[in-house]
Amino acid sequence: MITKELYLYDGNPDVRLTTYCLDSPELMAVGPRPAVLVLPGGGYFSCSDREAEPVALAFATMGYHAFVLRYSVYDPKGSVFPDITKDIPLKEACQHPRPVREVGMAMRLIRDHAEAWKVDADRIAVCGFSAGGHNAAMYGAYWNTDLVTEGKFEPIRPAALILGYPLIDYVLMRDLLKTAAPMDQAFFRQSNRAFLGGREDDAKLDEVSPARHVTKDFPPTFLFATTTDTMVPPQHSLALAMALQNAKIPYELHLYEGGPHGLSLADQASATSEWETEPRVAGWIQDAKTWLLKRFAIRLPKEPAWIAMAQGEKQ
Amino acid sequence: MITKELYLYDGNPDVRLTTYCLDSPELMAVGPRPAVLVLPGGGYFSCSDREAEPVALAFATMGYHAFVLRYSVYDPKGSVFPDITKDIPLKEACQHPRPVREVGMAMRLIRDHAEAWKVDADRIAVCGFSAGGHNAAMYGAYWNTDLVTEGKFEPIRPAALILGYPLIDYVLMRDLLKTAAPMDQAFFRQSNRAFLGGREDDAKLDEVSPARHVTKDFPPTFLFATTTDTMVPPQHSLALAMALQNAKIPYELHLYEGGPHGLSLADQASATSEWETEPRVAGWIQDAKTWLLKRFAIRLPKEPAWIAMAQGEKQ
Repeated sequence: MITKELYLYDGNPDVRLTTYCLDSPELMAVGPRPAVLVLPGGGYFSCSDREAEPVALAFATMGYHAFVLRYSVYDPKGSVFPDITKDIPLKEACQHPRPVREVGMAMRLIRDHAEAWKVDADRIAVCGFSAGGHNAAMYGAYWNTDLVTEGKFEPIRPAALILGYPLIDYVLMRDLLKTAAPMDQAFFRQSNRAFLGGREDDAKLDEVSPARHVTKDFPPTFLFATTTDTMVPPQHSLALAMALQNAKIPYELHLYEGGPHGLSLADQASATSEWETEPRVAGWIQDAKTWLLKRFAIRLPKEPAWIAMAQGEKQ
Repeated sequence: MITKELYLYDGNPDVRLTTYCLDSPELMAVGPRPAVLVLPGGGYFSCSDREAEPVALAFATMGYHAFVLRYSVYDPKGSVFPDITKDIPLKEACQHPRPVREVGMAMRLIRDHAEAWKVDADRIAVCGFSAGGHNAAMYGAYWNTDLVTEGKFEPIRPAALILGYPLIDYVLMRDLLKTAAPMDQAFFRQSNRAFLGGREDDAKLDEVSPARHVTKDFPPTFLFATTTDTMVPPQHSLALAMALQNAKIPYELHLYEGGPHGLSLADQASATSEWETEPRVAGWIQDAKTWLLKRFAIRLPKEPAWIAMAQGEKQ
């Protein structure tokens, strides 16, 4: 396995692409392999380890190269959230559209190394959780626009999106928060300060709501969430599913009855407590596997080389 | 992920331990994790890539550290088998008991690095396929004897064995080969020359047949094979299951109806051709996951730290 860390900005280790590239000569001889780029969540405050390496390994186990992007967040070294009881100071570095542009930069890095890492650059999926799911969906909506490319490079289409309990619609969020628990209200007041820098007018909220920007260029999407997620309620996933259905974009939705926000793989591989495990929800990765296989199947010869050789000897 | 290669013998890169150690600070803070040491097969001629990294990644995805040991084989650089139509020259380097001793050396390496890699050294399983399954079972039978330790170190008990279509009983093989296809006969004539150096008397065949050396110290074992494997027929797995049953050693056996030898994960992650995929057999890794969990469950606190903190603030 090729495990490297590539910085998106010289000298800034906080914003980095970590590679989990398959590296078995016998297997790589078959040809280049699809890849999945994983974006952890963390409310645009931080990037959670729980939604990073364990998820990358799950995709690598399916026979795909995997990558983790730690995009710009408010407190890149933080693993706990800031004090959300008072307004946090604004920081330019993590504000929209920087995180989604960094997805584009990561896609370019992968494409630029495709030959060395044996990546099938036309088959790269983007997978994200919570705020990372928002960032992935933003890339799905804007990958071929100047918002992402700034006109500087050829757009790179994500072959698919895989979204876990994503934040999808900031207009909807504004309504939902009115009746939410005080802690959730306080959380998003600060998360939105971090991500939007205090600019929360209708036009801005619309722009950062990918469900409102689904076009024919939006990639096929796999979605899962839990019905009792109070932090990013499943209305977000339903809103995207509705938009995808209406736009005739292929998608698959799994809404599990029950389970908290932030389950990641929902088993011990990604859990720091029993609270973060839920055997029924843990099935999503198997569903994602069979769904991805529709697009990412590796083209294999019928028989191994040694059978062909043995038959050649017989003739 | 910590990916390193450690040589068992100075200056000999052919015999090496490759690490796939989990490396997420948030997750590792929970405590040390169990590990699985993977031994690829290859008829003691070579070590197959198909039964190495993809399998290690499957165990890493379960939340365990994983390792691949490339033990001494006849042609360590080879990925195809030698010409088996004539007697191969004998080589001391790969002969019994060297391969099983190297499993002991690898277990010591892991134990010696347990603190740095955060490995729970009391919970290391050994997993092997075909000849690697034989080597793993040999370690299960002989781990606490001088054959492995040469009296030089404290024996290290494997917490479990996971064996895929293992070669188990050389006495049984001698009988089975009498009616086998000429190619399989020729294959084992040479494989046995490589592994046994031409010494195939009754005592030697008995010694290298772990099914004949199951004591109370043999570890719990998970076994799978296919009923139509003509190369290492399922009688080998059945013989070990019979011995484990009689010795009251916990074990689990999955014999799939149909499927060739050497399927590894039986899906595209480990296949170089369609011939090496078989969706039904691919279920073994899920069965191994739930079986391992009986012994390898990671002890998690009830709730994540942030819930305890939030509750502390309320009081």
